[in-house]
Amino acid sequence: MIGEIIAIGDELTSGRITNTTSGHAARQLFLLGHRIRAMHTIGDDAELIGATLKAAIARCDFVLVTGGLGATTDDLTNEAVIAALNLKSAIHPCVQANIESRMAKTEGKAAVSLAKLAHLPEGAEVLDDDCRMAGYLLRFQGKPIYFLPGVPPQMEILLRDKVLPGLQRFDGGRAVPVCQRVYRTCGLYEIEINQRLHTLERNGVQIGYYPVGAEVHVSLTGHHLEGGMDDPLFRQADALIREALGEHIYGIDEETLASVTGRLLQERDLLLATAESCTGGLIGATLTEVPGSSRWFKGGVIVYANALKENLLDIAPDLLGRHGAVSAETARAMASGALQRLGCDIAVAVTGIAGPEGGTPDKPVGTVYLGLAYGNTVIDRLCRFHGSRRQIQEKTAQTAMDMVRRALLASEQSERRMR
Amino acid sequence: MIGEIIAIGDELTSGRITNTTSGHAARQLFLLGHRIRAMHTIGDDAELIGATLKAAIARCDFVLVTGGLGATTDDLTNEAVIAALNLKSAIHPCVQANIESRMAKTEGKAAVSLAKLAHLPEGAEVLDDDCRMAGYLLRFQGKPIYFLPGVPPQMEILLRDKVLPGLQRFDGGRAVPVCQRVYRTCGLYEIEINQRLHTLERNGVQIGYYPVGAEVHVSLTGHHLEGGMDDPLFRQADALIREALGEHIYGIDEETLASVTGRLLQERDLLLATAESCTGGLIGATLTEVPGSSRWFKGGVIVYANALKENLLDIAPDLLGRHGAVSAETARAMASGALQRLGCDIAVAVTGIAGPEGGTPDKPVGTVYLGLAYGNTVIDRLCRFHGSRRQIQEKTAQTAMDMVRRALLASEQSERRMR
Repeated sequence: MIGEIIAIGDELTSGRITNTTSGHAARQLFLLGHRIRAMHTIGDDAELIGATLKAAIARCDFVLVTGGLGATTDDLTNEAVIAALNLKSAIHPCVQANIESRMAKTEGKAAVSLAKLAHLPEGAEVLDDDCRMAGYLLRFQGKPIYFLPGVPPQMEILLRDKVLPGLQRFDGGRAVPVCQRVYRTCGLYEIEINQRLHTLERNGVQIGYYPVGAEVHVSLTGHHLEGGMDDPLFRQADALIREALGEHIYGIDEETLASVTGRLLQERDLLLATAESCTGGLIGATLTEVPGSSRWFKGGVIVYANALKENLLDIAPDLLGRHGAVSAETARAMASGALQRLGCDIAVAVTGIAGPEGGTPDKPVGTVYLGLAYGNTVIDRLCRFHGSRRQIQEKTAQTAMDMVRRALLASEQSERRMR
Repeated sequence: MIGEIIAIGDELTSGRITNTTSGHAARQLFLLGHRIRAMHTIGDDAELIGATLKAAIARCDFVLVTGGLGATTDDLTNEAVIAALNLKSAIHPCVQANIESRMAKTEGKAAVSLAKLAHLPEGAEVLDDDCRMAGYLLRFQGKPIYFLPGVPPQMEILLRDKVLPGLQRFDGGRAVPVCQRVYRTCGLYEIEINQRLHTLERNGVQIGYYPVGAEVHVSLTGHHLEGGMDDPLFRQADALIREALGEHIYGIDEETLASVTGRLLQERDLLLATAESCTGGLIGATLTEVPGSSRWFKGGVIVYANALKENLLDIAPDLLGRHGAVSAETARAMASGALQRLGCDIAVAVTGIAGPEGGTPDKPVGTVYLGLAYGNTVIDRLCRFHGSRRQIQEKTAQTAMDMVRRALLASEQSERRMR
């Protein structure tokens, strides 16, 4: 099907907020085989909302509208739709009930403005089963018009759970999904990957490269392949990519370094701990984004000050004195100390200069030492990252997780060889 | 002036690349006093490009078009413009000369495709003085139509150096720059803020609301104010907002909770430490995003496992047994333990259920206890957050930083009262 996306909000047309929801929706729709004719971004202006919506409905099979569904006075989408499409307004009972329960909690303070949320165009089918999130489907001239909140997380949930399956039903399953697989790698530069893969491009399959911090994501896309991902062309390209990139590929599609590292730890029944200096907790925060991470992540220490490196990790003051806080020796001692003091099976440690201050000719901004302790083995690694303070911290966290992943894979291989 | 922005490219309508150039341009134009009526994103389709451009010209004072100016076969903007506006094509001598010098370097290999770059609509005024970057101005029916490259860095340079000054000339300096101030708040819901502020809205100043996790950002925008931010209308609204929101305002414009908390700590010469459970290091990671944070952040512990709460923070096992890891008592003990063991001046601790698993009827997902120890005082706070695991973690981290900020402000007030 062919659709248009309309994003509404003065914060978008004034450039205060970057519109990311339209691109996100376009991506999901594209992968399912739909085509986006146009995306429009307009302000909170009832007349313009109505005109844009009517024009889009006339041209397309479906329309997706985001934003302007809230309770504040500048949210105008509902009244604009009612006026433009000549509909009646109706109070939606489930939304109304939800508001009343919220009013009860706030002792009626929010009554007047919340009441607005229940006034929807007649025939609106509310998307969220609990009526907690704004958003509804309107069937107009037989075409599905979806209205979604502008807040990205809510919009993304409703898109995934309601809009995409709903559109497939409207379409009768005619759209042919694009087949795409994403290979997530860590440890190679984009240009190295490009050199290994560019000869594989041929009609029907397409390869794309997207650097994401210290990672590079490689996409393999097949259009109009009869067998989809089982098509010989796709399978052959897939095999060649896996061979060319080997264990630099840490995951496929939506897998993350944190989720893959966690899975490997859980499979081996191991507990990980972290000792972070320049990342300030970012490794732990990234690992614990994964649901259920308590099964394989024990905890960590953020030893930003040197005194804490000594107190919490038993690092000898003279070691810090001799080698400096940013050194291979300190990274190793941090990892060993974490293994001991936190009582885990494997520990990773980082210490470096995230900048913008603190660099020296010997150890410029971006110099990071990583240490890893696993059983009786301790290893270290030196990296020199480029970019902003935040980028250096992110690349450090990614590399630390990749170091754990590779250590787990390597120990398995060496065990196999010993057998 | 009123304008529209058109972004062209299949990579945008397929969602492979997020369109950031339109928002960037809208921001700059908005601040200079222009208004963006609509932004459109369309694919590489000559007919659609022509139709969208003609409609925009009919409605607006100026149009900005980005993308589709390159040398590859899918770049169609120039021919679409020539066809839609009924213009002739002309070879631009400067661009042609530039191509010839590049052809010489590549020994003619790129000749065929590069030649396309010099075929511009008749009357096109190339923007880059050296003719290296694509992009030109076309005057059509007396209105300026700017065509810019889609690559963000090139687009941004030409926008700043050529488009914005050019529009000011077209406008005869009539546009009055907008004055805008953003008040960043934590501790009130959007709807509560709206209720406190909506009566302040009047002709000439406008108030906007943008929730960002547990924060709400409020913008005050003045249009056509003679005195800018010194205009009595703007100053009065500013004073009323500050009075209505009081210490819920933590910062202005680009300030963050982390940077403000850090500044307050540094002014008082205090060191902060963190004890994190459900956030897994996110508070520390957010604080250490601020350059120079080592001057006020000592470090922290990530006590994900209960064993670490006992080992690293000296929490009595029977306290955990009696009250549970997610309780006010544990949050308080974590903060006190961190203050002692990490040797800092102020410590903040969080323990909660980020989900998606682990919730109970008594303590559903989103239940978070925060503890704060400062001098001899220990306080705690219960929050119930909604959203995804990540959102709950982010709201917890924001609230923890806000708790530190408020404690520092409160102690100052109480000291003042004692004097």
